[in-house]
Parts: sequence; structure tokens; C-alpha cells
Amino acid sequence: MISAQEFIARQDRLLAQCLPNSVCLVPAASVVTRSRDTEYVFRQNSDFWYLTGFHEPEAWLLLSNHPRYGESYRAMVVQDKDPDAEVWQGRRVGAEAALSVFSLDEAFELSELNEALLETLLGHDNLYFALGENKQADALVLDALQALREAPKASLAPYSMHDTRPMLHEMRVFKSACEVAVMKTAGRISAAAHKRAMQFVKPGCYEYHLEAELHHSFAMQGARTPAYSTIVGSGENGCILHYTENSAQIKDGDLVLVDAGCEYQGYAADITRTFPANGTFSKPQRDIYEWVLKAQEAVLTTLGPGSTLGEAMQQSAEVITEGLVSLGLLGGTIAENLQQETWRQFYMHGVGHFLGLDVHDVGDYKIDGQDRPLKPGMVLTIEPGIYIGSHLDVDEQYKGIGVRIEDNVVVTATGVDVLTADVPKTVDAIEALMKGA
Amino acid sequence: MISAQEFIARQDRLLAQCLPNSVCLVPAASVVTRSRDTEYVFRQNSDFWYLTGFHEPEAWLLLSNHPRYGESYRAMVVQDKDPDAEVWQGRRVGAEAALSVFSLDEAFELSELNEALLETLLGHDNLYFALGENKQADALVLDALQALREAPKASLAPYSMHDTRPMLHEMRVFKSACEVAVMKTAGRISAAAHKRAMQFVKPGCYEYHLEAELHHSFAMQGARTPAYSTIVGSGENGCILHYTENSAQIKDGDLVLVDAGCEYQGYAADITRTFPANGTFSKPQRDIYEWVLKAQEAVLTTLGPGSTLGEAMQQSAEVITEGLVSLGLLGGTIAENLQQETWRQFYMHGVGHFLGLDVHDVGDYKIDGQDRPLKPGMVLTIEPGIYIGSHLDVDEQYKGIGVRIEDNVVVTATGVDVLTADVPKTVDAIEALMKGA
Amino acid sequence: MISAQEFIARQDRLLAQCLPNSVCLVPAASVVTRSRDTEYVFRQNSDFWYLTGFHEPEAWLLLSNHPRYGESYRAMVVQDKDPDAEVWQGRRVGAEAALSVFSLDEAFELSELNEALLETLLGHDNLYFALGENKQADALVLDALQALREAPKASLAPYSMHDTRPMLHEMRVFKSACEVAVMKTAGRISAAAHKRAMQFVKPGCYEYHLEAELHHSFAMQGARTPAYSTIVGSGENGCILHYTENSAQIKDGDLVLVDAGCEYQGYAADITRTFPANGTFSKPQRDIYEWVLKAQEAVLTTLGPGSTLGEAMQQSAEVITEGLVSLGLLGGTIAENLQQETWRQFYMHGVGHFLGLDVHDVGDYKIDGQDRPLKPGMVLTIEPGIYIGSHLDVDEQYKGIGVRIEDNVVVTATGVDVLTADVPKTVDAIEALMKGA
Amino acid sequence: MISAQEFIARQDRLLAQCLPNSVCLVPAASVVTRSRDTEYVFRQNSDFWYLTGFHEPEAWLLLSNHPRYGESYRAMVVQDKDPDAEVWQGRRVGAEAALSVFSLDEAFELSELNEALLETLLGHDNLYFALGENKQADALVLDALQALREAPKASLAPYSMHDTRPMLHEMRVFKSACEVAVMKTAGRISAAAHKRAMQFVKPGCYEYHLEAELHHSFAMQGARTPAYSTIVGSGENGCILHYTENSAQIKDGDLVLVDAGCEYQGYAADITRTFPANGTFSKPQRDIYEWVLKAQEAVLTTLGPGSTLGEAMQQSAEVITEGLVSLGLLGGTIAENLQQETWRQFYMHGVGHFLGLDVHDVGDYKIDGQDRPLKPGMVLTIEPGIYIGSHLDVDEQYKGIGVRIEDNVVVTATGVDVLTADVPKTVDAIEALMKGA
Repeated sequence: MISAQEFIARQDRLLAQCLPNSVCLVPAASVVTRSRDTEYVFRQNSDFWYLTGFHEPEAWLLLSNHPRYGESYRAMVVQDKDPDAEVWQGRRVGAEAALSVFSLDEAFELSELNEALLETLLGHDNLYFALGENKQADALVLDALQALREAPKASLAPYSMHDTRPMLHEMRVFKSACEVAVMKTAGRISAAAHKRAMQFVKPGCYEYHLEAELHHSFAMQGARTPAYSTIVGSGENGCILHYTENSAQIKDGDLVLVDAGCEYQGYAADITRTFPANGTFSKPQRDIYEWVLKAQEAVLTTLGPGSTLGEAMQQSAEVITEGLVSLGLLGGTIAENLQQETWRQFYMHGVGHFLGLDVHDVGDYKIDGQDRPLKPGMVLTIEPGIYIGSHLDVDEQYKGIGVRIEDNVVVTATGVDVLTADVPKTVDAIEALMKGA
Repeated sequence: MISAQEFIARQDRLLAQCLPNSVCLVPAASVVTRSRDTEYVFRQNSDFWYLTGFHEPEAWLLLSNHPRYGESYRAMVVQDKDPDAEVWQGRRVGAEAALSVFSLDEAFELSELNEALLETLLGHDNLYFALGENKQADALVLDALQALREAPKASLAPYSMHDTRPMLHEMRVFKSACEVAVMKTAGRISAAAHKRAMQFVKPGCYEYHLEAELHHSFAMQGARTPAYSTIVGSGENGCILHYTENSAQIKDGDLVLVDAGCEYQGYAADITRTFPANGTFSKPQRDIYEWVLKAQEAVLTTLGPGSTLGEAMQQSAEVITEGLVSLGLLGGTIAENLQQETWRQFYMHGVGHFLGLDVHDVGDYKIDGQDRPLKPGMVLTIEPGIYIGSHLDVDEQYKGIGVRIEDNVVVTATGVDVLTADVPKTVDAIEALMKGA
Repeated sequence: MISAQEFIARQDRLLAQCLPNSVCLVPAASVVTRSRDTEYVFRQNSDFWYLTGFHEPEAWLLLSNHPRYGESYRAMVVQDKDPDAEVWQGRRVGAEAALSVFSLDEAFELSELNEALLETLLGHDNLYFALGENKQADALVLDALQALREAPKASLAPYSMHDTRPMLHEMRVFKSACEVAVMKTAGRISAAAHKRAMQFVKPGCYEYHLEAELHHSFAMQGARTPAYSTIVGSGENGCILHYTENSAQIKDGDLVLVDAGCEYQGYAADITRTFPANGTFSKPQRDIYEWVLKAQEAVLTTLGPGSTLGEAMQQSAEVITEGLVSLGLLGGTIAENLQQETWRQFYMHGVGHFLGLDVHDVGDYKIDGQDRPLKPGMVLTIEPGIYIGSHLDVDEQYKGIGVRIEDNVVVTATGVDVLTADVPKTVDAIEALMKGA
Repeated sequence: MISAQEFIARQDRLLAQCLPNSVCLVPAASVVTRSRDTEYVFRQNSDFWYLTGFHEPEAWLLLSNHPRYGESYRAMVVQDKDPDAEVWQGRRVGAEAALSVFSLDEAFELSELNEALLETLLGHDNLYFALGENKQADALVLDALQALREAPKASLAPYSMHDTRPMLHEMRVFKSACEVAVMKTAGRISAAAHKRAMQFVKPGCYEYHLEAELHHSFAMQGARTPAYSTIVGSGENGCILHYTENSAQIKDGDLVLVDAGCEYQGYAADITRTFPANGTFSKPQRDIYEWVLKAQEAVLTTLGPGSTLGEAMQQSAEVITEGLVSLGLLGGTIAENLQQETWRQFYMHGVGHFLGLDVHDVGDYKIDGQDRPLKPGMVLTIEPGIYIGSHLDVDEQYKGIGVRIEDNVVVTATGVDVLTADVPKTVDAIEALMKGA
């Protein structure tokens, strides 16, 4: 659980990076219609959540370092307190309570939004705002700027606009101790769910049954929603990278690829495991699986401060190429295949990505065109894979095999800590678990 | 399962209601972003689904009765077949397969959308389109019309635009035998889930645990998603009509109000039950509960062809007022309270609504300002309730009690069939189920 | 001057063509910014002017044939009466005075526009509106429709939208006696201005001097603005069809092509004359000129009820081709050149167009794909031309000669009346006028 | 005539004020529709004209100080060279010729605009652009930024956006010697036109006749358009500040207020004179006139470097108040009236404004909330007035008198130079001119 102090500290750190005499506007997400008058379960905007931990839609965070406010100014716009609306739509914090809950200097109701924007923008030299991210917020901010420019005091509207995202996203790359603790919990919850899915599966059940098991397990442990659409791909479906239909019946002899992670306190876990529907890997399945595992383990061993995702990509490609050549799936030498990148037919995605409030988390992977060295506090996934679609011209026994193994790690002073180690990944451990050992 | 023939018959029925020389455009829904590059689980637009049964996003149905096409013209625009995209994002039907799957006269790929719109609009007198429903589709259609008007053949663009919705929504009010069968399944699945939630609950568990039980039950029976955000309100939370936080710990002595239904093949169920967390109703809980049940049963007995929802509202209000007066929650006589509608403090919503592809389904409740007589094939919910918020000035023992009982019915030739009868609703039956009888 | 009765009769005729239970919305034009806080001279929307004769911006005409209003309903929205604003921006009619000036059933102020739209739309089956013509008006109307649809009385918003333009523009094709009288005045004013320009020109003066003479003459006769951007093209500039720079110095030996007409009470004249800067046509200039004149006169003689613009085009092309062949500008026979349409290199525009409130006036030229037979009351221009750009591979003496002769005619029961006959067009008459005879 | 060198120097001065690694985008104006397919005479955007002197619509100026370009980068996007389009619409410079005409590093055609924007934005830290001024340009720039952010090289899109206007408008406040020379010509042309109007007027003629005389005079002297809508207000119309109907017949005994100035090479003159229709001021007209003149002369004598427009306002108010009190139009003492600002009933506008490419020219009047001291090179109008609307409760003889006297001045090292001195303004001089002396 992130403390109120940590949220305020983040706001202060953001403001400290702004030029003097700046105002910073961060809008919350809106509720999204699913069909007619029903809505999807609300998901807060990650940047807004990172700065406030506030779960209501339609809110705005307003920060300023203008000297007229003293040290700093922190305000929010929140939905109007309205007893009638709340009987129908649920409770709201309201402006009055928000003042103390978020230690604000000022709190506005949503019905005052236009005035709040005008008042807050006035007299600043610089505006920090993520123009282009949210059309509705864009229109509100641009209209307010225009109104100020057309007013007699035109010269007092900010004439420079900076994107908040580079600063915020760089902050989000480095997880605090509290964030790592939350993400460990997310990893633990997700790992338990994966184990349950492995224990549950049997030939004849449907892919969506496994999805149901995973989601139920997430929720029973306190994580009401998955962080992303769960993938349960049996047989050849495992070769479709973002397969989310999950509608097929699982057959005896199928491998099942499950890519699922919960969202816990806003943070994502992102685990993939691949296992045999009937509890026992066939020879070709095991062959492929073990090379993927070898690739992942090689990376996990090497990864740490100073290494880069680019190096990890290369390392995993080398192991996988060695495997593909040794199994006869690629002709020629390892060196030739590496040079021609033929492995990309079987392993067509990246080795991993940042993880945090978003499953493909924000942050630059390159700095000045160079792969960025990892540093303590970064959280990443490592997820090599081999996918052998039936259309490929290879030995029949390998066709339709798709394997990915994905874990989440935090970079430490000396290497990485795996946050998702609770779910087995060796062939033996998986088979043992599935056999109820 | 709705047959391909039934979808075509619906398209034909729609077209038969259009003026001569008309083109009809019905866009599918788009995929909706949840956060950054992740998306909510796709939900098809109900009208598009009603006409096609096609689950992909970004599609369009194009119908015409222009004589140039003979009897009629049925076409679709579908996502481009693209092997690379499909490895990443999942399988697509593609234009070629769509031709036969949907028995079309023509099929376009999405990359040809603009041309398809221009070509299909040309030469028609009338355009049927739900202007105002989908901003992106509006822009595409208005741009196409404008382009045709500015072209040399300007006079060949349709000059009349009619809303498809009144016709389509009137069609959707009357469910076919197949639709009723699907909705019966939805009711049965949802009823089983409610029973499981009743058996599961105990003081100390959290509201979201019940939600997880319900959703897991839905999915294990083949209904991957709820039809609307599940409400699990314990204690006073039961008095918030659309309470969806489901975050509180359930206490001994609480009533728990659960309003949940699955979405099955696009159709919604919508059941509410209210039960004691510890398995036994207290005296005041039982008092309130039984009046609500009496109100619901009175309506269910009376309802049928020729009766109206307005009469049902009045009937339920009379029973509930009788209850509130007899319990001392309202002073004065029944007649006085009915005349002053004082019962609206405790029963502030309608007695029911249409149900179908949407939980608050489409269709007019009034015709020429008069309540519309029910007819066979209509599906509705009946859901009286009593909510005694703590802020009300009443006997302490009743404060914080919120009760709603909701079932789904189809109007038959002689009365109604209850689609959700599997889940108990008498006090005795509920207590028996919860005690594991 | 069009009478108030005629404007009302037009509104009635429009409404009589609408389906029963229709509302018709016609927005006025808006003021257009020229630079910063200055504006172009306001020009009313032609359709709005045609129906009302009202000169203020931002107004709306609202018509209805709903039975609730009795026979018909005619209302307007007009700028608010506001003494402070009027000291600054000029006088306004205001809603109160508009009631009687325009014999309305109701008049609204602009500040009530949204309410007026909602109120007027409500309860109608059909909306007539020129969707796509004016983005701002589109947004207001679509928002009002949406608001009505989302309101409890949703079913009372019009579900069919028809374009007003086909009906209005067909009405505008046929000029009433009053309109013809006004257009005769416009023709007379413009003719006088052309004569003045001919008398004024001499080598060494600038094209814009002639423009100034024309505009001054228009205004002194009561026509404050030209109907379109005046073209004064000397020498080769006469070969640029819409040359409006008018910046060159006129040289001895140049032909000068002047295409200019005033706007009088909203109606356009559109006259072109071509004359020698020094008062005497050279031999090649005269050669070309006389063939163009011959073509125009041939058309004017033939034109009348039952003939078509297509036939006039063909007729003028035949004369011009005969001329071009006889002058050696086209090789081969007349028949060959006509068949291959080689004359299009020299005569690249149409022979004429409708004329009225717009210089290229509204109205369909074809009906069911066929050229439309002319009928009494139609007003047109007839304007053949020959343009010999220097890039053409022809006899040097003809290079840079551009000639167009354009007059305005009204179709009568037996032929056409020329509205612009006051300005000379034979070589002799022009030279006589220029020599001060 | 501004030289090509001066335009380049302005671009360099703008770029020199930008932060390192900046790109600067300045769009030209677009052509504006007047009615149907006719357009208003094109007016270039003032900022674009100031930087380029280029008269075509739809162009863009692109500047950069990115080191990849060396010292600086200057490019333009211009309308495509297209012989067919040019026969119809007039000549265009085209990209190839633009290169040398404007000494550019690169020139693009309009059909390459999107690519040009993407290419030019890429890799810069800062974007200078007048967001909010031109919706169409806004959309193009924001779309380009969004496209760059969503591209793999996202981090290379500029993350700071600065408004070009404060810098450009501050530059425009100070006129160069060439600009002053052009504005002197504008003043001289406009003065001659005013003299002609004075000589022309007589009772019975219409206000628009004077407008025609003025515009004709402008054009004959080389200034094709007025800088703003000409005001000719006779009698009480002179009390409507922006009266532009100019439709009334001028009566014997009327004063006529004429506010008109030409636009010459983009620069505005702005002269107001008030004179008697019959050539002789009545006693009350003369009374009022002389106080206005006295106020103007007082200001013109005092004005100069270091003085402020605020002081000029105060000074003119003092003289006018003295006049109003002495004529009995205001009761009480001068001091009381000044303190209560009662003069604002008669003199309701400011004493003057900046003048340049816009008639109400750009530039801040206050700096840090204080009136800005004038400096050499600033050009202003000085235009006190007295307006006695008939609704005021004053002596009948003064009702309906409106007087304004306006001249244009450039601030010099020691005072001001009047640019519009050619047109008489004393009662005697006016009467003499009008009598043909």
C-alpha cells in the first residue's frame, strides 16, 4: 500500500523538475461505455494514479510552483458531492474531504472545472500537460488557454507548454521500496493463480475455464481484475501472440500457453507458463520447452545493473538459435543463423519490457540512441519464446508448438530478484505439480 | 444459438421497413483502450450483433433495396486479412470468408472502407443510419455524403437520412423463440451463480469474494463476462443502487444485496437476491424482505399480455406502501401515502425494464404518451425494493436495510414465464440453501 | 426590391413541399474574420436571404407544419437586443421587432438558441436541414437531436433528416418577376460600370485602376460590393481564367479582359467584355474577337424554352472551331476538330451557368442524367471565349490573346431577354465608345 | 517596399530568440469562402507576412536552429506548381522558384505538407507555434506530434511547445525605417482620400457614396483594399462606434464621421475626420469639435519616448471633461467629474492603439501590470472623441453629435511624427477645403 506521503513526495518531485513559474495539469481517466448505459469497470489513468492514488473518474490534479502560492500549490478537482447522485451511482469523496485526504491547498468541484482551470493557468509562464493523450482534456485546456489569451489579461496566460510525460515516465521507471513490495504481492497472487490453473487443466475442458480459474484466484486474493486480457492458448493457439478468444476445447496432447497477471493496487504482474494439458510433456514439446527455459535462465543469471535489454535479447536469441539448430529446425551453423537472424521466424517478439502500473510500462529503452543500462529499482519481464506455426516448413512433430516462459524481476544492486518465482517452470516441477505431488 | 438464417431474416425485416431506394449502414463497435496499450475485452455493438452475430470490431453492415441490386443487397466491411497482424492480434474472418459465412452479395476489407461507403451511398434517395451514436462513424458517413455532394454527380447522394434505431429497437423488443431459449440459458447460468454466492458467503469475507464466486460460476458455465457491473452490497451498501465498489468486509448481521447476471451469447440476465450474511434473517430484515417479496409476487401473478409496466409499478407501490405503513415506517393511512407518493423515499426506482442484448434493453415504454400494453415475446425484469438509508428518520432497527428481489420474465400468451426461477427467494428457501440443506 | 410578402410566400412554398409533421431549420451566415479583430464585410447565406431578406448574421429561420401550430409556424432566432453592444457594433433588429417585421409566430434571441432548437425540434417526425454546409450549425443541430434522444421524451425527436437544399435550390432556379426586375437593375448597373472602364483605360494605367473604376461605379449606383472577385486581365493575363491579382501595368497593344458584376440586393450580375487598351483592335485581336462574338450571338439567337445549355455549348464550340480552323489555329477540317474536341485547348470552360443570388447559381443542370430543357424564368450567363496562351504552338501574332464575351439572359416564353445589353460588344461599338463618340 | 533581406533578418531575429534545438512553424492564412464557390479577396496572415512578404495562401514557414542544419534552417511549404490549376486559379510561385525567391534551404510542395511537418519536427526539443490561432493548422501540427510520439522514435518529438506570438508581436511593435516609410505612404494615400470625401459630400448623397469615393481614391493610389471596414456615419450614426452599414442618406445639418484607412503593402492607416455635410459647422457642432481637437492636440504635443498611452488617456479625458463641464453637458466641477469618470458616458473608448500590419496592432500595452513607456519606432493612433447619443439627458442642441479625430503617429527620439497630417482638422481648414478654397 502506497502511503499518502509517497504520493505527495511524487508530486513534489514532479514539480521540482518543472521550470520556475509553472503550472502542471494532470487529468484522471473517464468512465468508458461498454454498451448503451452500461460501463466497463473503471480504470484510473496510470499517471494520475501514480501521483494521487485517487480512484475516482473525471478528477484533475493541479500543481503550481508560482511564488504567489509560497513553496508550492497542490489542488484537485473532484466530482461534486451530491447525495441524490450518490444514491444512484455510489459514494464520492467530494471537494471538502479531498482537501484533507490529499493534503491539498485547494479543492474544486467538477462543476467548477472551467473556472478552476482559468484561475490556475493565469499568471504562469509554463504549462505542463500531456497534450494529445486525452481529446476531452485537450479541448478543455486549449479552450481555457484561448479564453485567457482573448481576455484583457492575455499576456498572463502561459506561452510555453511542456509535456509532463517524459518526466513522469522517467520517475515511474524506478520503483520505490513500497512499489516493489506491492509488485511482489502482485507476483505472488499471480503465481498462485497459475499454479491453480496447472492443477485444474485436463483434456476436454475449455480455454476459458482456465481463464475463469485464474481470475477467480486473483480476486479471492484481493486483485479484482487482471492487468491485461488473459491469454489461454491451447495447441496452435499458443502461436498467436495476443490470442484472447480463449474459446477452444483443450485436447489431449496439447500444450497450453497461459499469459496472465493480476492488477494489484494498480500494479501489473505478467507471468507466462506453458504446460501439457494432460500433465506430461511429449518429447518434442519438452525439447522446445527446455531450450526456451535455458534461454530465460541464461538471461536471468546475467541480468543486473549495467547490463541492457539489448544484450538480453541477443543472449536469448543465441540460446534459442543453438536450440533450433540442434533440433534441426534451422539448417546451417549457429553463427550463420545468428547473422541472418533466421531465429526471428520462431521468436518474433522482444525478450522483455518494463513493468509497473502498465503491463507494457512507460519509460525510454534507449537514451541517445543507445540501449539503456539497467539500474536498481527497474522492474522488467523476461519472456523468451519459440512458436512453430503449422505453416512453417519444418518437421511435423514440432508443428503447432508454442512456448513462452515469462517472469518478472526487479533489478537489485547486484543482479535481479525474481518476483514470480512461486510458480514452477522446470519440466519436472510442472509435471510434479500437475500430478498433484 | 441464433442461426445464420435468423440473422439474415432480421436484415430482411429491417430493409422491408425502409422506404424504396434506401441504403442502410450499421457500424460495429470499436475496441476500447483500458490503459496505455491494453484494451477492455471487446463488446460488440448490440444493434450490429442483433443483425449479424459477428463478433469482430470495426466492421460495417451495408444493406440496400435499390433496384440496381435486384431484390436486395447485403454487404459487409471487415478487418483486412493479414497474416502478420493475425500472429500478433488474433484471427480474423476476412472479406473472402465473410462472403459465404454471412451469405453476402459483396464483402470489403476495412482498408477499402471509404470507397465502400461512397459506392454504396451513391444513387440512393434515403440513408438509414444511427447518426449521433458513434462519433467516428458519424464523421465517416458525413464525409462520404459531403464528398458525393461536391462531386459532379452530387444529385445522386441521398438527401434524406433516417434513424435506424426506432425500427431496430422495436424489432428487438420482441424476442424470437431462439432468443428466449438463449435468455433462458442466461437465466439458468445466473441463477446457479447466485445460489453458489449464497452458499459461499459468511461474515468476514469481502464483497468482492462474492463477486469472484459469481463471475467464476458464470464463466465455468460458458458465460465469460457479466452483462453489467456486478453489485455486491452488504449492510448499508445495499442502499446504494449502483454500488459496484464491492470492497467492504461483510459483517455478521448484515444483509447482502447481490445484483448480477451473466452475458450469454450477447444476451443479459439480471437477477437480484438479498440474503443474510450469517444465514438467518433478523426480525426487521425479514419484515422488510417479505413485503418486497409480496410486492414482486403480486406483480408476477398479474403481469401478462395487455397489462402494462405502469400498472405493475402502481401495484408494487401499493403493496410496499401497505408494508411500510404496517411496520410504522410511514405514518398516516395507506391511501394518503399512496396519494402523496411518500413510498418514493424507500422505493426510488422503477419496477422493471426491458431485457435483451442490453440489460436496460431498448424499446419504447410508451406509445403516444400512454403506457404500452405488454405482448407475448417481450422480456422484462421485475424488481421491487425497499431501501432504508441511515439518514432517514425511522426506527433504528430498520436503518441500513436494503432489499431488492429481481427476476426475469418473458410474456407468454397467458401471463409470464419466469426465466430465473432456479434461485430461491422465500425466506425459508434461502435460509435452507444457506444452511446447506 | 423583394417584398415581405414574397419572402413569406417562399417560406410557405418550402414548407408545402415538406412531409407532414416537419420542422425546417435554416441558419444565417456568420461574420468572418479577415485579420486579427477585423472582419470581412458580412455576406448573408444565399438560402437564408432567399427565404427572409434578413441581413443580420447568426440568425436562424425555424419553420414547422406540425398541427400543434395550426396552419404553419414561422419563427426566427436573432441577435440579442443589447444597447451596450449596439453602441459598439451597430444596430440590431432584436426579437421583439423581428416578430412584426417578418410576421413571425415567435422570435427568440440568440442567447436562447439552444432552447429554441430543442423546443422547435421536439415532437416532429421530420427535420429539414442542410447538414454538411456549416460545421457550427451542424454541431448545434446534432447536439440538440442528441439531447432530445437522451432525454426521457427521446421518442419525440425527429428520426428523419432531409436536406433542404434540393427543394430550395430548385425554387431558386426560377426567378419571379420581382427577382428579374432586381437582376435587370444589377445588369444595368454593371453595364454602366463596364462602359466607364472602357472609357477610362489607356496604356500605362494599371489593371487595378480599372477595378477601382468598376467598383466605384457599382457603389455610386447603389451596389456596394461586387458579386465576385473582379478580373482585369491585360495581355496574357486574359488567358488566366480566374486572374484576380489585377496588378499589372497595361501596355499599348494589349487586349484587356474585364469580368465583373455587381451584387445588388443580393443578386449577381456577371458581365465580361474584352477591349483594346489603346482603343483600336489589331487585326489578329479583331479576328479572334469576332469569332467569339459570332459564337455568343449564335447562342443568344437560338436559346429559349426547350433548348438546353448542352446544345448551346455544342453550338458555340462549332462556331469557335470554324473560326480557329479558318484562322489556321487548328489544322484539319472543322468536322475532324469537332470530333476530336481540339477546340478545348482554346475554349476550356463551359458556355454559361445559372445566375442569381450566387454568381454560379444553384440548381441542377441535368435531370436523370439528361441536359435539362430551359424554361421561362431561368437566368443564365452566356460566355464563350478563346484563350491563346503563349505556350501554345501557334502563329506568333495570336499568342497572348484572350477573349471572352459574357452577357446575362432571362429565359422568356419565346426566347431570352438580355439583361446586360447596355454595354457595347461589337468591335465598332467598342471602338466608338472608347474614342469618346 | 520591404526588402527580401529585411524578411530574412526578421526570421533570423525570431530564431535567435528561440531556445537551442528549436523548430518554428508559421502557417499562412487560407482562402475564405464568401458564398458558395466565391471567395473573399485573400488577406495574408499578418505574422506570416511579417516574416516572409509572401502573398500566397496555404503556405508554411519552417525554421530551425538544430545543429544538424548548421547555422540555421529556413524552409517553406508552398502550393504545388500545377499548370492546369494555374490556368483556372492564377499563377503560383511553386517550390522550385520559392527556393531562390526566399533564399531557402529547402522548399516543399503543399502535397508534401504532412511529410514536411514530420521531417522538420523530428529531433527537436522545442516547437514554436501559435497553438489556438488556426484550427486547421493546430490539427495538422498536433497530428504530426502524435504520429511522432506513437512511432518507435517517439522520444525524438519535441516535448515543449512555445507560443511564437509573444516574440513575434514584440518584434512587430517596433517599426523599421522601411516599415515607417511604407506607413507614411499609407497615411498619405488615406489622407488624400479623406480630402476627396470632404470635397465630395453634400446633403442628399448617401453614406456609401463617401465610402465609394474613399475606396476609389485608395485604389487609384495603389492601395486596393481598406485596412478595415470603412465607417461613414452621418448624424446620430456617428455615435455608433463601429457603424459600417453606411446606408443612410446624409441630411443637411448633419455632421459626418468618417473612419477609414487604406491597407498598403499589408500596413494599415487609420484616420478619422468629422465634418459638416453642408460645409459649415453649426455652433454646437463646432463647440464639441473644438474640444475634441484640443484634446487630440494636447496629446500629440505631449506624446513621445517615455510617455505612456495611459497618460495620454488621462490627458485627453481631462481636456474633454473640461469641455463637457464648460458646455454644461456635465454638472459639478471638473475635478469631481474626473474623479467619478462621468466623461466615460461621452468618450467610451481608449485614446489610441498600436498600428501596423493590423489596424489594432499586436503588442503588449502593459508590462508587469504597468503602462509601457513609449519608445522610438512605435506607431500609434491618437483618437479622442465625444459622442452624444439622443438617449442622453442633455441639452437638445447637442443630441446626435458624434465627433472623433484620429491621426497616426510614429514615436521619434524626441516626440512623435504625424503620418497623416495631410488632411485638415481645424474647423477653418475643413470649411475652407469643403468650400473649394
